[in-house]
Amino acid sequence: MKLATLRAGSRDGQLVVVSRDLTRSLSVMPIATLQSALDEWDTIAPTLRVFSDRVNESEKGTLPFDPQACLAPLPRAYQWADASAYVNHVALVRQARGVEMPESFWTDPLLYQGGSDSLLGPCAPIRGDESWGIDFEAEIAVVTGDVPMGASVEQARKAIRLVMLVNDVSLRHLIPGELAKGFGFFQSKPSSAFSPVAVTPDELGDAWDGGRLHLPLLSTLNGKPFGKPDTGVDMTFDFPTLIAHAAKTRPLAAGTIIGSGTVSNRGADGGPGRPVGEGGLGYSCIAEQRVVEAILSGATKTPFLKAGDRVRIEMLGADGQSIFGAIDQAVEAASR
Amino acid sequence: MKLATLRAGSRDGQLVVVSRDLTRSLSVMPIATLQSALDEWDTIAPTLRVFSDRVNESEKGTLPFDPQACLAPLPRAYQWADASAYVNHVALVRQARGVEMPESFWTDPLLYQGGSDSLLGPCAPIRGDESWGIDFEAEIAVVTGDVPMGASVEQARKAIRLVMLVNDVSLRHLIPGELAKGFGFFQSKPSSAFSPVAVTPDELGDAWDGGRLHLPLLSTLNGKPFGKPDTGVDMTFDFPTLIAHAAKTRPLAAGTIIGSGTVSNRGADGGPGRPVGEGGLGYSCIAEQRVVEAILSGATKTPFLKAGDRVRIEMLGADGQSIFGAIDQAVEAASR
Repeated sequence: MKLATLRAGSRDGQLVVVSRDLTRSLSVMPIATLQSALDEWDTIAPTLRVFSDRVNESEKGTLPFDPQACLAPLPRAYQWADASAYVNHVALVRQARGVEMPESFWTDPLLYQGGSDSLLGPCAPIRGDESWGIDFEAEIAVVTGDVPMGASVEQARKAIRLVMLVNDVSLRHLIPGELAKGFGFFQSKPSSAFSPVAVTPDELGDAWDGGRLHLPLLSTLNGKPFGKPDTGVDMTFDFPTLIAHAAKTRPLAAGTIIGSGTVSNRGADGGPGRPVGEGGLGYSCIAEQRVVEAILSGATKTPFLKAGDRVRIEMLGADGQSIFGAIDQAVEAASR
Repeated sequence: MKLATLRAGSRDGQLVVVSRDLTRSLSVMPIATLQSALDEWDTIAPTLRVFSDRVNESEKGTLPFDPQACLAPLPRAYQWADASAYVNHVALVRQARGVEMPESFWTDPLLYQGGSDSLLGPCAPIRGDESWGIDFEAEIAVVTGDVPMGASVEQARKAIRLVMLVNDVSLRHLIPGELAKGFGFFQSKPSSAFSPVAVTPDELGDAWDGGRLHLPLLSTLNGKPFGKPDTGVDMTFDFPTLIAHAAKTRPLAAGTIIGSGTVSNRGADGGPGRPVGEGGLGYSCIAEQRVVEAILSGATKTPFLKAGDRVRIEMLGADGQSIFGAIDQAVEAASR
């Protein structure tokens, strides 16, 4: 089933089930919020399935589904932990910063604690100061149920409840200073944005293997194709591994969001690939494309985001239909 | 007023007001949770004050207040961001790790994003593996209302709703490896524990100056005094400064918890001070005492926490009464 949270004059919005083709929604009151459903998933999911079947079978009682009316599926969450599971991305971005990457990054997952108190809806503006070096990062994320401390990878796999898309907005010019302080990204990772709907893994069919999603993740910048890497390729750590890593020293509460990190595929030659404009699969963030531009031509060409720029992130199923709806955000200058 | 959250068979517990002397509590149904009160503080606080006056004036309808029955005031929060505002602590712990501290740490606040999905009650066990180097960190924290992105220090000051104590449990042997990865503390900062009650700033009288709390923070280890530094001394950055720093690139949602970092006072000579057993003010974590032991005698003596060890953190007002109640936790071995 596909779940969304509509704006409803409240912080947590109103949970709805959405038709598979993303055209209609149906309110599931009195199950008010996605968090409340996740809190008692085993009890509530069967009811949600009844509503989901109904919205897929009949127009009765449904409303047109409008991504513009969506908040993030979890407008505020108790945890957002984002990995860098596509180690190729880390290697490239580090290369750009002139920082070496330890070999252990290929065997020990990287995970940072993100702010989860104010997550952005799919069409919310990205507000920021251009001098911060605003970038997007197209990613996949899962939402978990309760995960006990010390959970095994198999326990972690069973705790995956939902899958969605993320734009992990990143402030490139603030990152070096923040990381040099040794306490993580804090100011350099503002609110992330999420796809209109979160879907249960069964909606993904064969594209979901229980740990990875195998489809191209489509990013466009101002309407032009920017990236289309396959999310199942070069994902060094799968989601169950990331979840178990996060739960090593503490439990994870239901509604925890775990991100994949920027999706990134190597080129056919094992190198950093090529931009879409040059026949490659492109990139899921501007920073990577800039590194490659520097490698290929000696100079970066693509600037970071400016006010008015538009980023769109989407994934199509084998049938060409949008699975999660699109993250479609414009950049707005923040008043200082 | 003083607010607590009692265990009630639900994830978020039941909000109660507690008498100033911490002997009695009064339910404030239908205001079920502290988060719901923070979500609409201006509307709900006046009602809470009526209940607070009642619990202070009369025993009618009250129940004995039992810290053992407490969850954390916010058993799960949308944000827990912890600073290192006592830069003296950072300098000492870095010295212990043999890592130099940049001068900018005295002017640019350090803040890390902590996990907020499963916060511990005041008497909950600290579960962990002794090989992780389990340590406590005694701190002060504030809970904020909504803070807009780019808020000024003055706006931040007005957003402070509540003050409480924290034990920011730290896994010393995991920290170097985590920080070397550059993504922050993740596995090395498991669930933090909070005092039985959170109090509104007016309860603190002259001890609260709007930015800092000026009282000794008392830590004991296995019943022996361990630290009694003054929380108003050597706090390089006050809470409004920390909140404004956190809000530079994104808004903070109501219920955000901002921690002070480990409270630490220099000695009278400007140096790292002395253990309580040697006439000093002692320390708010074992790591600092170990550094000082190494400096004074060439070897660390105090081991990190073992199963069965007990940590108590409390603060007394000028009248000798406990303000927040005590964090009182025993260490339990985690089954692996």
